[in-house]
Amino acid sequence: MFKVICVDHVGIACKDLDKSKQFYTEVLGLSCTGEETVEEQHVKTVFIPCGETLLELLVATSPESAIAKYIEKNGQGIQHMAVRVDDITAAIADVQARGGIMIDKVPRGGAGGMDIAFVHPKSVGILLELCAPAKK
Amino acid sequence: MFKVICVDHVGIACKDLDKSKQFYTEVLGLSCTGEETVEEQHVKTVFIPCGETLLELLVATSPESAIAKYIEKNGQGIQHMAVRVDDITAAIADVQARGGIMIDKVPRGGAGGMDIAFVHPKSVGILLELCAPAKK
Repeated sequence: MFKVICVDHVGIACKDLDKSKQFYTEVLGLSCTGEETVEEQHVKTVFIPCGETLLELLVATSPESAIAKYIEKNGQGIQHMAVRVDDITAAIADVQARGGIMIDKVPRGGAGGMDIAFVHPKSVGILLELCAPAKK
Repeated sequence: MFKVICVDHVGIACKDLDKSKQFYTEVLGLSCTGEETVEEQHVKTVFIPCGETLLELLVATSPESAIAKYIEKNGQGIQHMAVRVDDITAAIADVQARGGIMIDKVPRGGAGGMDIAFVHPKSVGILLELCAPAKK
């Protein structure tokens, strides 16, 4: 049985990364950690720690990116939320055993050295990511 | 100077509160705290603690509700995020002094005994709420 630990991060789809970064840092007084490009997902991300949660600013690096498609449909906004779990493999199995639908049936590599798996929006109404630090 | 402490809650616009509640409790294994109706905002809310953050499930109780309008435009999804601040009055003043635009220029009462104030989406790209426990 897996356990949900906390809200690991909130994924925010941005049109202009510098402008968004500026708001969170200069207006809200938070700090950025490094930028990272996740080639596979066609996004550039910036992480901003806020308590135990990271705000993940996301900007598309190509029109194929899920972020580009989200912004085209909805405008800027909160594209997904990720909850940290204690065991990603157990979480994928348990969610399915309890009638939930997973997009990813095996964990894959995400930003920040995490193993991630998305739950299907049909199942939960939002784009929900499960994540856990990758085992070394 | 105000400080942002953590992600206080993530506001999730739901079509069917019971169905969403069921996913978070029965599939993810989280627990609900009480339901609350905020008449002024035409919403019913359920809070689900997840680490230091609350997941706030929101369902419209009338078509005038911001949640009804959000769902009409975007479908179900993450409608807003709230960050907890140490001093809501100072936060409203500081955000404006630093060029941010506030929807609420004075704090108002929200769910869960909090004083709240929304930042304008023009300013930050998402619907961002600032909140702090109401002073007694």
